[in-house]
Amino acid sequence: MKSTARIVTNKIESLFPTSRTKKLHRKPPGEVPGKAVHTGEQRLENVLITVHDFDEEHFDTISINKIEKSEPFLQDKSKTWIQVMGLHDIDKLKSVWEYFDLHPLVQEDIVSVSQRPKVEHYENIIFIVMRLIKPVSDQNEKVSLHTEQISIVLGENYVLSFQESDDPIFDPILKRLEQKSTRLRKYGPDYLAYALMDTIVDYYFQALDLLGDSIEKVEEQILGSPGGEHLQVIHSLRRDMIYLRKSVWSLRDGVNALIRDDSHLMTDEVKIFLRDVYDHIVQVIDSIETNREMVIGLFDMYMSGLSNKMNEVMKVLTIIATIFIPLTFIAGIYGMNFDPEISPYNMPELGWYYGYPISIVVMILVTAGLVFFFKKKEWL
Amino acid sequence: MKSTARIVTNKIESLFPTSRTKKLHRKPPGEVPGKAVHTGEQRLENVLITVHDFDEEHFDTISINKIEKSEPFLQDKSKTWIQVMGLHDIDKLKSVWEYFDLHPLVQEDIVSVSQRPKVEHYENIIFIVMRLIKPVSDQNEKVSLHTEQISIVLGENYVLSFQESDDPIFDPILKRLEQKSTRLRKYGPDYLAYALMDTIVDYYFQALDLLGDSIEKVEEQILGSPGGEHLQVIHSLRRDMIYLRKSVWSLRDGVNALIRDDSHLMTDEVKIFLRDVYDHIVQVIDSIETNREMVIGLFDMYMSGLSNKMNEVMKVLTIIATIFIPLTFIAGIYGMNFDPEISPYNMPELGWYYGYPISIVVMILVTAGLVFFFKKKEWL
Amino acid sequence: MKSTARIVTNKIESLFPTSRTKKLHRKPPGEVPGKAVHTGEQRLENVLITVHDFDEEHFDTISINKIEKSEPFLQDKSKTWIQVMGLHDIDKLKSVWEYFDLHPLVQEDIVSVSQRPKVEHYENIIFIVMRLIKPVSDQNEKVSLHTEQISIVLGENYVLSFQESDDPIFDPILKRLEQKSTRLRKYGPDYLAYALMDTIVDYYFQALDLLGDSIEKVEEQILGSPGGEHLQVIHSLRRDMIYLRKSVWSLRDGVNALIRDDSHLMTDEVKIFLRDVYDHIVQVIDSIETNREMVIGLFDMYMSGLSNKMNEVMKVLTIIATIFIPLTFIAGIYGMNFDPEISPYNMPELGWYYGYPISIVVMILVTAGLVFFFKKKEWL
Amino acid sequence: MKSTARIVTNKIESLFPTSRTKKLHRKPPGEVPGKAVHTGEQRLENVLITVHDFDEEHFDTISINKIEKSEPFLQDKSKTWIQVMGLHDIDKLKSVWEYFDLHPLVQEDIVSVSQRPKVEHYENIIFIVMRLIKPVSDQNEKVSLHTEQISIVLGENYVLSFQESDDPIFDPILKRLEQKSTRLRKYGPDYLAYALMDTIVDYYFQALDLLGDSIEKVEEQILGSPGGEHLQVIHSLRRDMIYLRKSVWSLRDGVNALIRDDSHLMTDEVKIFLRDVYDHIVQVIDSIETNREMVIGLFDMYMSGLSNKMNEVMKVLTIIATIFIPLTFIAGIYGMNFDPEISPYNMPELGWYYGYPISIVVMILVTAGLVFFFKKKEWL
Amino acid sequence: MKSTARIVTNKIESLFPTSRTKKLHRKPPGEVPGKAVHTGEQRLENVLITVHDFDEEHFDTISINKIEKSEPFLQDKSKTWIQVMGLHDIDKLKSVWEYFDLHPLVQEDIVSVSQRPKVEHYENIIFIVMRLIKPVSDQNEKVSLHTEQISIVLGENYVLSFQESDDPIFDPILKRLEQKSTRLRKYGPDYLAYALMDTIVDYYFQALDLLGDSIEKVEEQILGSPGGEHLQVIHSLRRDMIYLRKSVWSLRDGVNALIRDDSHLMTDEVKIFLRDVYDHIVQVIDSIETNREMVIGLFDMYMSGLSNKMNEVMKVLTIIATIFIPLTFIAGIYGMNFDPEISPYNMPELGWYYGYPISIVVMILVTAGLVFFFKKKEWL
Repeated sequence: MKSTARIVTNKIESLFPTSRTKKLHRKPPGEVPGKAVHTGEQRLENVLITVHDFDEEHFDTISINKIEKSEPFLQDKSKTWIQVMGLHDIDKLKSVWEYFDLHPLVQEDIVSVSQRPKVEHYENIIFIVMRLIKPVSDQNEKVSLHTEQISIVLGENYVLSFQESDDPIFDPILKRLEQKSTRLRKYGPDYLAYALMDTIVDYYFQALDLLGDSIEKVEEQILGSPGGEHLQVIHSLRRDMIYLRKSVWSLRDGVNALIRDDSHLMTDEVKIFLRDVYDHIVQVIDSIETNREMVIGLFDMYMSGLSNKMNEVMKVLTIIATIFIPLTFIAGIYGMNFDPEISPYNMPELGWYYGYPISIVVMILVTAGLVFFFKKKEWL
Repeated sequence: MKSTARIVTNKIESLFPTSRTKKLHRKPPGEVPGKAVHTGEQRLENVLITVHDFDEEHFDTISINKIEKSEPFLQDKSKTWIQVMGLHDIDKLKSVWEYFDLHPLVQEDIVSVSQRPKVEHYENIIFIVMRLIKPVSDQNEKVSLHTEQISIVLGENYVLSFQESDDPIFDPILKRLEQKSTRLRKYGPDYLAYALMDTIVDYYFQALDLLGDSIEKVEEQILGSPGGEHLQVIHSLRRDMIYLRKSVWSLRDGVNALIRDDSHLMTDEVKIFLRDVYDHIVQVIDSIETNREMVIGLFDMYMSGLSNKMNEVMKVLTIIATIFIPLTFIAGIYGMNFDPEISPYNMPELGWYYGYPISIVVMILVTAGLVFFFKKKEWL
Repeated sequence: MKSTARIVTNKIESLFPTSRTKKLHRKPPGEVPGKAVHTGEQRLENVLITVHDFDEEHFDTISINKIEKSEPFLQDKSKTWIQVMGLHDIDKLKSVWEYFDLHPLVQEDIVSVSQRPKVEHYENIIFIVMRLIKPVSDQNEKVSLHTEQISIVLGENYVLSFQESDDPIFDPILKRLEQKSTRLRKYGPDYLAYALMDTIVDYYFQALDLLGDSIEKVEEQILGSPGGEHLQVIHSLRRDMIYLRKSVWSLRDGVNALIRDDSHLMTDEVKIFLRDVYDHIVQVIDSIETNREMVIGLFDMYMSGLSNKMNEVMKVLTIIATIFIPLTFIAGIYGMNFDPEISPYNMPELGWYYGYPISIVVMILVTAGLVFFFKKKEWL
Repeated sequence: MKSTARIVTNKIESLFPTSRTKKLHRKPPGEVPGKAVHTGEQRLENVLITVHDFDEEHFDTISINKIEKSEPFLQDKSKTWIQVMGLHDIDKLKSVWEYFDLHPLVQEDIVSVSQRPKVEHYENIIFIVMRLIKPVSDQNEKVSLHTEQISIVLGENYVLSFQESDDPIFDPILKRLEQKSTRLRKYGPDYLAYALMDTIVDYYFQALDLLGDSIEKVEEQILGSPGGEHLQVIHSLRRDMIYLRKSVWSLRDGVNALIRDDSHLMTDEVKIFLRDVYDHIVQVIDSIETNREMVIGLFDMYMSGLSNKMNEVMKVLTIIATIFIPLTFIAGIYGMNFDPEISPYNMPELGWYYGYPISIVVMILVTAGLVFFFKKKEWL
Repeated sequence: MKSTARIVTNKIESLFPTSRTKKLHRKPPGEVPGKAVHTGEQRLENVLITVHDFDEEHFDTISINKIEKSEPFLQDKSKTWIQVMGLHDIDKLKSVWEYFDLHPLVQEDIVSVSQRPKVEHYENIIFIVMRLIKPVSDQNEKVSLHTEQISIVLGENYVLSFQESDDPIFDPILKRLEQKSTRLRKYGPDYLAYALMDTIVDYYFQALDLLGDSIEKVEEQILGSPGGEHLQVIHSLRRDMIYLRKSVWSLRDGVNALIRDDSHLMTDEVKIFLRDVYDHIVQVIDSIETNREMVIGLFDMYMSGLSNKMNEVMKVLTIIATIFIPLTFIAGIYGMNFDPEISPYNMPELGWYYGYPISIVVMILVTAGLVFFFKKKEWL
């Protein structure tokens, strides 16, 4: 984890490399709603469609080109998970959507990739939008947070999942599907939808740990010696935290509604598991709030640390100045040119036998007095 | 977008050119309520009334002078949209209102143009007030936010829309109406009302992008070198954000009530689309909140950046002063006029062969010592 | 409006001249509740009782001394508004109260003039307490906010209104009552009660405009040159805003309850108008909140403006000092009294042909160097 | 009221002399709940039990030693108020509690004197805990806030009141009981319970006035000349305000529940009066919130006042320094020892006839120039 | 308690020694939910299982190795409490869980020790997770807060409790169980569950007292003399307070739900006691909020105290400098080398009989004047 902190403080950039420049892309005002326009970047060459068909007895995975090829899987009694990767090829996606007769607004939301997370009930499906936030490290061990929108459509006997890239986030689920007599194989498609949601929520914990690490590292550095660069780091952390909160916050109400609502698509058995997801989301939100308070605390610490440091500088420097000013004055006195020969009152000290040593002693005494005074005042 | 940032930081003015001077115009206290008084500026020479009549088969648009001319359109089974532009000619408007038998309070609200957004149910109509916020650029590419009040009256088989200027905001809707077999042509007037609302909400996203750009630009500048002018920019952004929030906030509850309430004027099919509008409003509010936090963060950054900058100035200057003060003292010592001829103790250094060079060396050593001390303390 | 701003910034006092010294007057602890004690100042010589009797056919106004004289008006089918001005003569008021059989707590609340606004249902009446806030200008055109408590009792066929002074706030209503076939004449006493409330709420808009003006004026001044006096103005504005909010806030819930509750005293027709009042109250509260944020923003601006100003002072002064310190040192060097005759190393410069000019040139070079350095650092 | 302010600013201590050192006394963890342990200080020698028996016809007061002696009063149809003062003698209290068969948790709460205010329904009683806050002045006219816990048990035909000291807070109630045909004598025990609550709430207004006075006094002082001692006063006021809020806040919900809940112990007639108490509690809470904002405002004012004051000091002092630094430099120049006899370029000024006067004039001009510059910059 | 404060200010570390480094341990994303993985440290060598069987007649305690040995106790009609200490040996725990047929998610939560507190209903059990926070002192009397997760499972006739260490927190309960005819022995297992919860809540009060002590100590120190170390202490206190709040906050809703929900496992009699626990939790949360405000107040005090202190330093030092600067200037004047022999205008003072004494007197007068000026301005 060392690398994380190093990045944060050296390169001083947001952990979300893509979040800053992202606009709230929307269709032009007045355009027909439900018109699907992909608002993200293309991350894959082709849209990949994979069909996973399974029940307690079997588990098959095939890649298909045309959605019609999934027909046999959907017809039989087994459960089918159609995993779509890549959102740039609207035509291909459209064939999938129309095959499943998805509402135009669902189509629009799937490819409009800066949605807030939500759970929506349509006539015969439940539509779930979530934001994946996942720590990734590049070749320089630089850790950043990869983020993409993931949409899940839960139907009678199928689950559709849409994601922007081919990031293998759901591979652990596939591995579990391979094993017989797991809950995934036994339960209905609602359990699969739950499992996908659970996986995404699990990544939030990793992202939070990463952010927590950064905060603690910065905290230590600021307590040590606050510098101008920390201002930017703190601002960046604040930004990340706001982004993270926005990505998770509305999910809580969505999942809660899912638990409370009556929908034949979601069984009571799976709702107990959803309650667990809900719990984790609340925990994530709690942690985000805690971290936000910490970041605000960081700023306070930074400001007062800076203030402390400046005060120290000013104090030492001013003390030096203050000690020498009276001394210089004394030296100035005996640099005056009053003529001692005209009267005995004119600077007789200049003619004393011990004049110079005495003046030096006086200066030493003044210095000692000031130092003593400063010490008493605890300024030294 | 370059122009935006330039404006913000050079001219330092609100993006809402009209928002500051606008009072909360109201009828004089005690006056009869429901008395229509136009509280905005006149933006058009004449009030324009356009009738759009359409159903699945036809789409006709005519400009009329007297509202009675719309009679035939309203009589038949087709849907009719009467678009009114300009709110200054109360008499003409009154003829429209009375033709449709609008409640006096609705009449008052249509021309009282600093309403908060709202959705109100009357006996046989739904009355919707919204605030358009739309980026416009003038001939110098200066971008500002144009804002006006738009009222929508949804009746049994008609929609009335009232706007202050003849800004062609709803032209894309007209274009879509021209196309056969669109939802607009097929669905009832409630879908048209939805489409108008959707269009206005879409503009909010553009306005937010503009504001987001400004914030980011200012942020970069402040991180670079905070200056006095930024104080004003930040204050102005804060103001804009408050205005924007006020313009959108209460719309959320209004649309939500529209979705939940039972009114035969709003069909379930269209409510699904309204849910989408609701979603976008929430997203807009989220973004406003995020931006507000960002602006507060900007102020903190500004203050501490300023403080940092001042500290740097003070430090360098004080260091110079501190180094020279002891040196000046030493020079002062040997400027004293004690008489070396009276005793060997009186400033014998003046008579040394290497007196002067030694004093110079001492000064160099003192300087070196102080510089070393400052370096060790990391003040240099 | 010039006068307003002048007052605010020169005299630096609250716009509510009476709000500061007002205590939360209450009966002594343990005293019997419902005991009417007037807690305000006497503003009139005598308590004035005026009876306005009206229906669609007639409108009569008479001043009476004894409440019994209103008997004939209350007996007939017409609607009666009894307007009471002045709250100091408890005996006279008591005769009114007892005539209408008001609950002791209603009696107490009418004369206890620092109530929070509220709407209360009693067995056969609705009792409404509001706070009038109205801009008034004195002979010097000094504008301040006059405030008094106004209580309204809505009965079966009558309305009672109680106010502290004889301020003619309800005169516009009287004028409207004189006109035949107005809603006021046609509708029941509930519409009259609504009209009274509407009038009071209308004044809030005027008060808000006044406060908004003050804030903008102060804003401009602070952006120009922040001074010590602004601190007091800001504090005073904050105070006024809190007072204003307290005066309006709880009214919202009261009016909302009035709209939602079932009471035969309030008809559905009038409730539509009450909804309008509710809307205006929400708008007022919104504006108060906006203004409060503005005032907080003002304080931030003030603090950083002050800081900016001080920084400028310090910078210029310190730069002057820093330039002269090295120069003085050089002059100090050549003021030393090392004896050049003893050795050629002792200050040979003093004996150079161009010694003095060279030293002057060195000083000029040092100055130029420092100025160049400061310029490069952008401190000059 | 002068004394109050004096105390606040000179002695700088909380108005709640006892609040700081008070711990959250609780039984040791794991101990049996409902075990009565007195957690306050003993304030009386003996626990005093007084029985007040009354109905419309009679009113008797007797002091008793054993609770059994109250038997005859409780048996008859009259209403009985048993007033218990002093909470340290658990045995004696226990006899009372067991006589009335109080739930162990009620017993624990009565003597555990740092409860939050609450209203609880038990099977046959209503149990009310409130905190008395009452201004008292000692012999030096020093005003502080006396605070103790008061518990009220409302039964079928009796009221029990428990208080820590023998403070005669309820004496006005006793006086009112002596008078025939008052509501207190006519209504049931629920009205007596209400009267006791009302009395306690009335004291809050006095306490708030006292705190308001302190705040205003400090405000004036800070606007005049902010000093280090104010920091402590403000912190103390903040603390008092938090304590006050904690003492009242939860009472609101309690009384509200009492009004809404159906309990045969509380009649509708008395509920109207309770609504009045509720109203007062809300008013108290409002005032506390207002005062809290004021105290926060005080801190801001203090900080900026301090900053203003320091700035003024720094400015004047630095100006003096800045003026003399160039002058000293000029004097330093002509204190140099370049030998004018060696060349005509070496300090020829020293040999001028008007050399000294000219140098003095130059110094005066420099001073005048700097003063003029400072004036122009408005730093003087 | 002296030791506490000493620790806080000398060692400057969090009272929660373990809270900082704790990550939000979670299963890897995508892993099967309900898979029990212990996320804490091992604190015991072996997992200890103790069975307490009791009813009104008997109370037996035995340690068992295999959960099957508890069979006879669970079969009979008596109530059984199975206390499990140590959570690292999943296999052994699994045998317990499976014996009682606990839901996989319950299993996961028991050993996943950074849960937020919660109360969950399953088909036949109620599952309660709480966080113990308990002050402990080590051999050096250093006090810190020990924290561990405690899970309680309430079944038909049994209670399971799981804790991480063998800390004897429930020993007082065991002692009470030994005594006949206590409520613990008489009531059902729901009362035992309540008693366990009550014990844990009681510890919160001790923890709060400890934190309150720390805050007050720091407060006093800061009012005395704020130093750099306090910054860290305040930050640490803030952190502790956030941690504490997170540990208690969600418990409130959980217990509230337990009181309101209908579950045959929780009788009405015990719900009255639960209401008491609820009350204490609210009190704890209130205190945490109060303490948080206090800590924020501390930071304000710290900042302004620091500012005050610095101001004092700067003032004294600058005053010294300011007094000597004019004096040095005067001395500089008479150190100039204008030749008095060339003209009578050239520094005639040097040749005066009382020249030197006069110059000294002038210097004394200047000093006196400046001191007088400073005194008048109250800077001295």
